[in-house]
Amino acid sequence: MKVTVLGLGSMGSALAGALLAAGHETTVWNRSAGKDEALVARGAARAATAAAAVAASPLVIACLSDYDAVHGVLEPLADDLRGRTFVNLTSGTPEQARESASWAAGHGAAYLDGAIMSTPPGIGNPAVMLLYSGSSQAFAEHRDTLASLGDPVGLGDDAGVASLYDTALLGMMWSTLAGWLQGVALTGADKVDATAFTPVAIRWMSAVNGFMSTYAPRIDAGVYPGDDATLDVHLGAIEHLVHASAARGLDTGLPELLKASIERAVAAGHGADGYARLIESVRAGGRA
Amino acid sequence: MKVTVLGLGSMGSALAGALLAAGHETTVWNRSAGKDEALVARGAARAATAAAAVAASPLVIACLSDYDAVHGVLEPLADDLRGRTFVNLTSGTPEQARESASWAAGHGAAYLDGAIMSTPPGIGNPAVMLLYSGSSQAFAEHRDTLASLGDPVGLGDDAGVASLYDTALLGMMWSTLAGWLQGVALTGADKVDATAFTPVAIRWMSAVNGFMSTYAPRIDAGVYPGDDATLDVHLGAIEHLVHASAARGLDTGLPELLKASIERAVAAGHGADGYARLIESVRAGGRA
Repeated sequence: MKVTVLGLGSMGSALAGALLAAGHETTVWNRSAGKDEALVARGAARAATAAAAVAASPLVIACLSDYDAVHGVLEPLADDLRGRTFVNLTSGTPEQARESASWAAGHGAAYLDGAIMSTPPGIGNPAVMLLYSGSSQAFAEHRDTLASLGDPVGLGDDAGVASLYDTALLGMMWSTLAGWLQGVALTGADKVDATAFTPVAIRWMSAVNGFMSTYAPRIDAGVYPGDDATLDVHLGAIEHLVHASAARGLDTGLPELLKASIERAVAAGHGADGYARLIESVRAGGRA
Repeated sequence: MKVTVLGLGSMGSALAGALLAAGHETTVWNRSAGKDEALVARGAARAATAAAAVAASPLVIACLSDYDAVHGVLEPLADDLRGRTFVNLTSGTPEQARESASWAAGHGAAYLDGAIMSTPPGIGNPAVMLLYSGSSQAFAEHRDTLASLGDPVGLGDDAGVASLYDTALLGMMWSTLAGWLQGVALTGADKVDATAFTPVAIRWMSAVNGFMSTYAPRIDAGVYPGDDATLDVHLGAIEHLVHASAARGLDTGLPELLKASIERAVAAGHGADGYARLIESVRAGGRA
């Protein structure tokens, strides 16, 4: 396949490198010179202009600093995109992705917005997810080529969804890591090394994954049985987390916040419901 | 092996049932009558008194309502425990576990304190972890028998550590599930089902597990390189989480808290460090 990559920062260069490694005819372009030398040495074609880069391939991937940069490069070339597929891997918001999808549709280009769930060294590893949303037809057509970059996960026709997943998944990362740091600090205060605690923590995460799988259909159905553990039981147990953290002089901000969310739901009369009931208060802006 | 189980609530009954299923000669006792019938029908020996129950086996497992109940039952039988191993699976604090260990040592009994990382239906499943700390010798001796209950994970000679891990792991669970609910609410606001988001979230958790594995030795060494992503980069990205949550009318409590902890570390001059640097502020009670 012929593929063009616009933008050769560390991520764009990793993308182009993975395409080359998979044997694709890869054309590269970067606004400032000198970023393409290693790629050209590996067989990439250097495009002198962005217009030449777009013209070179039916599949055009952009990975630029932000959406303003994307518009700056591609607005003048809108008509050159007609009939091609434009895959935008630039970081941005769901709203920016949807605007770009409309813009591309208005110029006869198929549009996919993507989120790369990895740092550059992970590119090309099939365990790494790249999320795509936008034209399902374009996704199906180019899926095999995109698989050179990492596992392509298609999220449907709303171009904003890949970016929204990105934000949601990073939120889970921060939240999980914050809980892990609290656990490392708690056990560390009693002389347990982080490297001793962490393998047990990682094993435990499979159980937590199981809870999510159990609760997800309940959330979609709006039913929250307390069959595994009720919010009353959670509230009793979370006291230990607050107390053990305070007794060791640790930050109690996260434990207190987690406790408060359960407490509000119990105070609102939901103590016999299961944990998944808390989705209602997240949706209601924190009101139980 | 001969094993005694004291306490036949739903968890104690599950423990005794798993021991019977594994072919152990199991003696059971409960303060109030009538809880042992199904177990006796499956071959358990009914002890008329707690003293008879303790006398029946070299391995005595207690799973009672709390530590006060444990002391109420076993204080009068302290000398009967001499030479036996007492495994206390009653929920409590690290401090209570350590006191019980001292008490048992004073009466010539080997002591293990345990934490069951499961609800009763999981007992007997080798994927389920039961954490033990206290006498490493007793753990080694009885490990095969304890394996009937779930995978036995030994955490060393400090009897308080199993309970502390329990609290730390539950803290990770609440924190992770709270992050997941935020993600479900975020994507749900844009018409993504929880059952669509969750499998992607679970895949992403393997990457998060990888971050913990990378950061754990750095925390033990007290070095926090920003090689994968700096706190400055995290701070830029976490703005999207706060903004996207607020724009959808969701609770922003958790996103704001996660952001504030990064912000404090950046303000204190650690913006070029990696995420693991935040352990220092958890340990310092929230000060960066």
